[in-house]
Amino acid sequence: MQLISENRAFGGRHCRYRHAAETTNCEMTFAVYLPPFASKENPVPVLYWLSGLTCTDENFMQKAGAMKMAAELGMAIVAPDTSPRGEGVADDDNQAYDMGLGAGFYVNATQAPWSSHYQMYDYITKELPALVEANLPVTGEKAISGHSMGGHGALVIGLRNPEQYVSVSAFSPISNPSDCPWGKKALGGYLGNDESAWSEYDASVLLAQKQHYIPLLVEQGRADQFLEEQLKPQALINAAQKSDTQLTLNMHEGYDHSYFFITSFIDEHLQFHASHLGLS
Amino acid sequence: MQLISENRAFGGRHCRYRHAAETTNCEMTFAVYLPPFASKENPVPVLYWLSGLTCTDENFMQKAGAMKMAAELGMAIVAPDTSPRGEGVADDDNQAYDMGLGAGFYVNATQAPWSSHYQMYDYITKELPALVEANLPVTGEKAISGHSMGGHGALVIGLRNPEQYVSVSAFSPISNPSDCPWGKKALGGYLGNDESAWSEYDASVLLAQKQHYIPLLVEQGRADQFLEEQLKPQALINAAQKSDTQLTLNMHEGYDHSYFFITSFIDEHLQFHASHLGLS
Repeated sequence: MQLISENRAFGGRHCRYRHAAETTNCEMTFAVYLPPFASKENPVPVLYWLSGLTCTDENFMQKAGAMKMAAELGMAIVAPDTSPRGEGVADDDNQAYDMGLGAGFYVNATQAPWSSHYQMYDYITKELPALVEANLPVTGEKAISGHSMGGHGALVIGLRNPEQYVSVSAFSPISNPSDCPWGKKALGGYLGNDESAWSEYDASVLLAQKQHYIPLLVEQGRADQFLEEQLKPQALINAAQKSDTQLTLNMHEGYDHSYFFITSFIDEHLQFHASHLGLS
Repeated sequence: MQLISENRAFGGRHCRYRHAAETTNCEMTFAVYLPPFASKENPVPVLYWLSGLTCTDENFMQKAGAMKMAAELGMAIVAPDTSPRGEGVADDDNQAYDMGLGAGFYVNATQAPWSSHYQMYDYITKELPALVEANLPVTGEKAISGHSMGGHGALVIGLRNPEQYVSVSAFSPISNPSDCPWGKKALGGYLGNDESAWSEYDASVLLAQKQHYIPLLVEQGRADQFLEEQLKPQALINAAQKSDTQLTLNMHEGYDHSYFFITSFIDEHLQFHASHLGLS
């Protein structure tokens, strides 16, 4: 694990690391914010943040304005990249923004040419936390959140691994990828056309299957340009009602899909996760 | 004044505008954050933020994390571009980052090929505030701040126009441009080799000339990679002592030149300006 850069921020540290990843079979980059006083003797819990289409490990750390509250709460934040990258990693033939590089969708791909590197589900749920917990001053306590494609990833990962994450939240998630253009393209490409393979990566399908007990918080702007065609939060609401699962989904008048929306409500999400991580 | 984009943030609005500017003889772009409830009936004071080399109107709004506190305080923030741009606007022959586009240094250029467009001092002190005050729900009350090249701009503009700005602050400013490589190149290029013309654009020279009464606050990181060669905060301290001017200059262990530093202390600067703008 190689340190690429380090910046002091709010008395803590923002660090970027590069490492050879087995799951994705390439070098991966991630960013971490460590709050003040985090140390081997005083390890802190971690919020994993999954970013949206076209992002890298950098967007959230630079634009969300989350570090002040993370410093106050004593919470680390880990922001991984959104896909494998580098020589030999397949990209969309037309370099589309919604497939391939920057668009891993947090799945384990089964189809060529993706399957040799696009194993983001295993990277996020297994390899990255093991690496972080072995090398940084953190506990094993984890929560997970994300935006758009990353909101989809966070919901799927949280719902499937409630023993591993204490809480899950999302901003503007792709709520029902089996039933929207972004999701159909990505799940079809990575998992093949047999839609039965898609359900384990669809938050609305997972949520409807059984009652879930992991705390769930979702934020959505009503002026989001992707609301109707791609995001479909009503599918989450319907699924939660069907399985009698408790879901808090806040709709916000006037807010769009951008980081201006995320930054406006990120503090509430950090406080939500902190309450389940025993920090407040 | 043409609206380019608008995003809701913290209950207020982040807007980008384009307009034909007389001073710089080209189209200029600026961003503004308007806090909640700002209206013709309830106009708010304005903090002008001048950005550093290579920046546009976007960097501060996306990276500083300033909007939450501005919303709480009821303060607008205006972030102009760092130079004229567009067809026919001269750039450095080698497209250097520290001269020409993105590097206007907030001066009125007198030398060819710069003088026809690089009139950033007049743009910032006259044309932009007149436009903002005529078209947006703001009062005439103003404060000014900035980073690096923009910290230089803010200090120079505040010291020369204390009747126009109630307070001035800077992060990591180019404190004595007559005596550092960035400043010598830019002032020499824009104003010519006669160094007597440089003094009205050098905060340390201005500060030493006479006692100033405008409230001054400066933040500087000790791990800033440009500290010794380019920024030279000691020149400001020496100048303030010479003129018996009150200056608060805070040095911070471990902090560098990046937005990770700015975001760590921006709230204190907003509060400082708010206290002089009658907001707290």
